[in-house]
Amino acid sequence: MEHGGNVLKIGKEIGIDPHEILDFSANISPFKIPDGLIQLITQAQKDISIYPDPKYYELRKALAHYASTEIERIVPGNGAAQIIHDAIRLINPVKTMLPVPTFSEYEAALEVVGSSVVYFKMEMTNHFKLNVGKLINQIDETFDLLVLCNPNNPTGNLITRKEMNEILEKCQKVGCKVIVDEAFIEFVTASDRLTMASEIHKWNHLIIIRAFTKIFAIPGIRLGYGIYGCLELSENHRKHAVPWSVNVFAESLRYYINSVEASVYIKKVSETIKLEKEIMEEAIKKMEAFTVFPSHTNYLLIRLSDNEKYNVERLYHWLLKRQILIRKCNNFNGMPSRFFRVAVKKKEENRQLIDSLLSVNNIILNNKQC
Amino acid sequence: MEHGGNVLKIGKEIGIDPHEILDFSANISPFKIPDGLIQLITQAQKDISIYPDPKYYELRKALAHYASTEIERIVPGNGAAQIIHDAIRLINPVKTMLPVPTFSEYEAALEVVGSSVVYFKMEMTNHFKLNVGKLINQIDETFDLLVLCNPNNPTGNLITRKEMNEILEKCQKVGCKVIVDEAFIEFVTASDRLTMASEIHKWNHLIIIRAFTKIFAIPGIRLGYGIYGCLELSENHRKHAVPWSVNVFAESLRYYINSVEASVYIKKVSETIKLEKEIMEEAIKKMEAFTVFPSHTNYLLIRLSDNEKYNVERLYHWLLKRQILIRKCNNFNGMPSRFFRVAVKKKEENRQLIDSLLSVNNIILNNKQC
Repeated sequence: MEHGGNVLKIGKEIGIDPHEILDFSANISPFKIPDGLIQLITQAQKDISIYPDPKYYELRKALAHYASTEIERIVPGNGAAQIIHDAIRLINPVKTMLPVPTFSEYEAALEVVGSSVVYFKMEMTNHFKLNVGKLINQIDETFDLLVLCNPNNPTGNLITRKEMNEILEKCQKVGCKVIVDEAFIEFVTASDRLTMASEIHKWNHLIIIRAFTKIFAIPGIRLGYGIYGCLELSENHRKHAVPWSVNVFAESLRYYINSVEASVYIKKVSETIKLEKEIMEEAIKKMEAFTVFPSHTNYLLIRLSDNEKYNVERLYHWLLKRQILIRKCNNFNGMPSRFFRVAVKKKEENRQLIDSLLSVNNIILNNKQC
Repeated sequence: MEHGGNVLKIGKEIGIDPHEILDFSANISPFKIPDGLIQLITQAQKDISIYPDPKYYELRKALAHYASTEIERIVPGNGAAQIIHDAIRLINPVKTMLPVPTFSEYEAALEVVGSSVVYFKMEMTNHFKLNVGKLINQIDETFDLLVLCNPNNPTGNLITRKEMNEILEKCQKVGCKVIVDEAFIEFVTASDRLTMASEIHKWNHLIIIRAFTKIFAIPGIRLGYGIYGCLELSENHRKHAVPWSVNVFAESLRYYINSVEASVYIKKVSETIKLEKEIMEEAIKKMEAFTVFPSHTNYLLIRLSDNEKYNVERLYHWLLKRQILIRKCNNFNGMPSRFFRVAVKKKEENRQLIDSLLSVNNIILNNKQC
């Protein structure tokens, strides 16, 4: 399964330093990693000769505080990807409901355990919004698991609190566990931010999966965590987890995540991203060659208009020649053709993307070869 | 399952800085991490905002070169622990032969997949040496997997090449896969070092598991790898592995492991450890209260002589009061009582341990309370 963010491979292919690529394919924060966090990571180097605490007590305490829940509910891991795979192995579903298009790692993890998957299609005509009434109708006793990404990747949609409660109630009634993936929750501005973490104690069948990869722009460090409504499941997950799965650099985030600097940073990033996203949306909306979809997080899903001569593959290569990398969406299950995704980056970088898209738009309107 | 090396927890319990504890419980090199390696780890920090290569191509190439084998056989992971769990999940054995006492993580991983385990006891009377003839007699078509740690932890025993070939031939005949754990292989001096890595292509049913944790003293970084005799199994392992499971700091070892500095370091460490181990052995042999067992690697298994008043628990706490941490061996399956394990550290540190053991020896001989 190919994901975004593979600038090492692409840099090698086109013969340039990966740091030189304008990477709009990875959905991570474009801003400088906060100084306090960098300092902690540098300091953590002195501890590389000591085994991390196998129980990760201090880390779990910090994560629980950050998520406004109890330490017993927290399972830390080697990135959200590990939590996804381990949680699905633990639940071991026979039949899973998966609204698509969504983050492809869930399909990969469900395939490993051999779960049958019912794909619940979110329709382009409805801006890929989840049809909650229809979903609730389709969920019944035969389902073991429902996976929801909130906000969803790559569509940027958000499920409201009312909708989430309705879904959780129905799933509780029919005995279906629910994974809610909140990997991008920090990018949703505070007024819209709906996290189920602080209410997890109310829902025994709920598991939340999160990471710091995106908001702090640290995919190389690997820190994800699960939050369990069911204490027994949480304990089982920890019991069966690979020991020392969080390295000392990732573990050092325990000193950072509840700091004032961290909360100021998250607020500033989410607000800045929102503003920049609106600027991008406005600019792209004016281009006939593209349709941009509304997003609550740090990326935009865009459709290249129907046209015999130009497809996403061609657009991708045209942009790559200009050192701009986008995420083609053709390998997202349930995604119609002609879609791509771009992260919201810094003003100047977004400007470069917009300018390039504008050039493509003009080429297409003038019916030239792109 | 408790392992050695938990100085964070113990430091907290006794109220001292973990760096102040003389940790003989973790089997890692006592020497300074080589400068070149530290430099690379420091440099890797600039890459934490980039996703690691999901295929780990360069890392795998470096590991293959280091192990004198082909890149297709290499699976990197988040420490040997992850490779152990993933490989056993992949093999999914119904019945496993496990010579004991041995590294306890294998039992944990076998429990997760629900394998039945036949414990093949290595006898104290035979210095815990593996009785190869007897093992070969007992292995039959009903076994799916045999696990061998070479050198074995906590006993320090080595299997000879002739013995290993006999075992592999028998297992091949009856269709039983073999995991050989070589986590401590670098501590065996070159003349005695038997690794199956360079011959792995001859054995389709063989999987080798290794790590850099011990030799470079970097348990906080997490880098392990598997080497597969079977190319299909290797590919399956990589296909089902959690993506980005090796962080950028661990990934940076690819620039180091094949350097001249690394090979000089490994040679020097293994030879120095061997000398220091002999000094420790000689000193402990003279103490009536202890029996020391021969070891080919960087730790010694020691038995506290029978005595009604003194047991390992008491010895452990007596030493801990002096900031010396040993590994009690009571939780190793198949280990007789009264055993503990100590790592070989630097001359001065070993001296401190020896002096303390000597004090205990005198106390016991004088029949005082320890």
